[in-house]
Amino acid sequence: MIRPTRAVEAIPATTPFIGPEQLMRETGRRELVRLGANESAFGPSPRAIEAMRGELTRLSWYGDPESLDLRDALAKKHRCSPEQIAVGSGIDDLMGLAVRAFLAPGDAALSTRGTYPTFDYHVVGYGARPIAAQYLDDGTPDCEALLSLARRDAPRIVYLANPDNPSGRFIARAEIQRFCAALPHDTLLLLDEAYADFVDEEELLPLAFEDRLIRLRTFSKAYGMAGARIGYALSSARNVATFQKIRLHYGVNRNAQVGALSSLYDEEFRRHVVAETALARADYYRVARALGRSYIESRTNFVCINFDTAERATRVMNELLARGVWIRKPGAPPLDAYVRVSAGTEPMRRAFESALRAVLAGAQVEVP
Amino acid sequence: MIRPTRAVEAIPATTPFIGPEQLMRETGRRELVRLGANESAFGPSPRAIEAMRGELTRLSWYGDPESLDLRDALAKKHRCSPEQIAVGSGIDDLMGLAVRAFLAPGDAALSTRGTYPTFDYHVVGYGARPIAAQYLDDGTPDCEALLSLARRDAPRIVYLANPDNPSGRFIARAEIQRFCAALPHDTLLLLDEAYADFVDEEELLPLAFEDRLIRLRTFSKAYGMAGARIGYALSSARNVATFQKIRLHYGVNRNAQVGALSSLYDEEFRRHVVAETALARADYYRVARALGRSYIESRTNFVCINFDTAERATRVMNELLARGVWIRKPGAPPLDAYVRVSAGTEPMRRAFESALRAVLAGAQVEVP
Repeated sequence: MIRPTRAVEAIPATTPFIGPEQLMRETGRRELVRLGANESAFGPSPRAIEAMRGELTRLSWYGDPESLDLRDALAKKHRCSPEQIAVGSGIDDLMGLAVRAFLAPGDAALSTRGTYPTFDYHVVGYGARPIAAQYLDDGTPDCEALLSLARRDAPRIVYLANPDNPSGRFIARAEIQRFCAALPHDTLLLLDEAYADFVDEEELLPLAFEDRLIRLRTFSKAYGMAGARIGYALSSARNVATFQKIRLHYGVNRNAQVGALSSLYDEEFRRHVVAETALARADYYRVARALGRSYIESRTNFVCINFDTAERATRVMNELLARGVWIRKPGAPPLDAYVRVSAGTEPMRRAFESALRAVLAGAQVEVP
Repeated sequence: MIRPTRAVEAIPATTPFIGPEQLMRETGRRELVRLGANESAFGPSPRAIEAMRGELTRLSWYGDPESLDLRDALAKKHRCSPEQIAVGSGIDDLMGLAVRAFLAPGDAALSTRGTYPTFDYHVVGYGARPIAAQYLDDGTPDCEALLSLARRDAPRIVYLANPDNPSGRFIARAEIQRFCAALPHDTLLLLDEAYADFVDEEELLPLAFEDRLIRLRTFSKAYGMAGARIGYALSSARNVATFQKIRLHYGVNRNAQVGALSSLYDEEFRRHVVAETALARADYYRVARALGRSYIESRTNFVCINFDTAERATRVMNELLARGVWIRKPGAPPLDAYVRVSAGTEPMRRAFESALRAVLAGAQVEVP
């Protein structure tokens, strides 16, 4: 009889995220207003689209396994060496490499309960042991709690998303610097900066390429290329060489490399997206206030709106879906009373607002 | 101090394949005649290109994590259920899942010495133990030797590429059926059918969706989408559910899904590629004969030409590269005396032929 290894048999069958395509099938809809996955509503850069269009006929060629041109451009941007950059098919991929490289079965890995779940997906998938701090009541990751758990349980990796997903909170440079300095020296900080492109460089942790810090960046958010699957890790050349021993060398789509490279040279477009995203956030704040709901000030391309209990937030989410508007909601307290809506274009936001007003006007969701 | 796990530290730092982009940098060339990676010289299907072009602006959306539409279409093609199909970012990805799911550290995994190396890359990467049979003298995988090693060493997985890479040999249906039946019942056969689209369906192993058989297919070869990174596994629903527990759910590029789906509906294009590839093979046979070289009859999109010793074959390969023609060569005997050249268009084949004639006419390679 054929059986998976005991380690793989022990992994529970969970689906990290149900995709909108599945929801469309379940609800019988041919379209959804996609505001659930923090995809960019402003698309990829026109320069990236143009470059990728021109290269479609060469999609019969494998992408460069070393992403040489892209790593050169990224090295220039981040003032480092290409040897300090690993390119992968999105942050999820790179996160898996970090977990596989640094966590042996049974090792502890620390994160915040309710944060981006793919880290724990990998931790469990490689037989390691997830431990977690709680969010602060305002939805900020609790650095003090993370530090004391790091000292107590000696995790090999601490995962932190900054800006955070799903709260949208941002921990300022000085505090992150204190946090890094206070972590035990044999603890690796895996810093998920998927939303860093929405924050000014000067507000971020200064770049340092140490063994104990791996920063994860992506073209999925501000650069609008989620479907391309391309991201990168910034770390020491030693850690990048470790990834080199286990990564899928031909894993990155060729056109994703082409588009990412062009995107990097379209700083004007990124600034445009960041500005549009700020408008979208302000618009959601206004909607929340108009409906008497509180919300979390976000530094990302999404906003969390408070519906007081997890049950109500879930009902709001489900009834929005029934009206063709797809959003998601955080799964763990204290954020589980919120729904999370991604920055949309003006028409998408109006669709969200009117569906939300209809939901709240209906009898199904009694919000006081 | 931050160190990878002992298991990962133990993995040797090897690069499975040096990419042409790296070779271009090393040789200072801005272009190479790409005949080294068995990429299709005939590009993706025009229908796939058209479909992908139309979807580029939606590359800001993640691809469907379940590839629902593509799996439906594949299920129809292979007369099975979508639950028997796992989509991944190419065969390398799916091979990694199979190794991770079924090989515990120390478990034996059997293949043929010198075959497609990414299987062993994963075996070593997950701490398992590669064992290998030898090719027959004519470059065919040795089913009898594989069977006796399977009986002796009880590997959890036997890997076989059919048609084979790098030899191009094809093991006929009846023999593969005998091989499957004779394998120990607790051995999983990982059947790499990357080049199956160049062979008629009736010549392939009939489709069966058992726990002990995982067949790997790709859009990289006949469908000309190597750069897209998309392939699939056909197996039991149980094995597919196992992959579901460890795979990267958002790992496949959205446009790769779009292009793959359109390719499936362009059977005329596939037949055109298969016909052009047969012409290319015949052309290489002619070149080999004209130069007094023997070759291996291939059922794939590449041909191996014999240069009698590994040293000579290496020199031919290097001197072709110096002339701007990129090919590869097998690394292990008995095939290491061969160079392997991918099916090219007519102008690419002429570039190969004239460069090869120049190499052989030169003093550097003394071929009798």
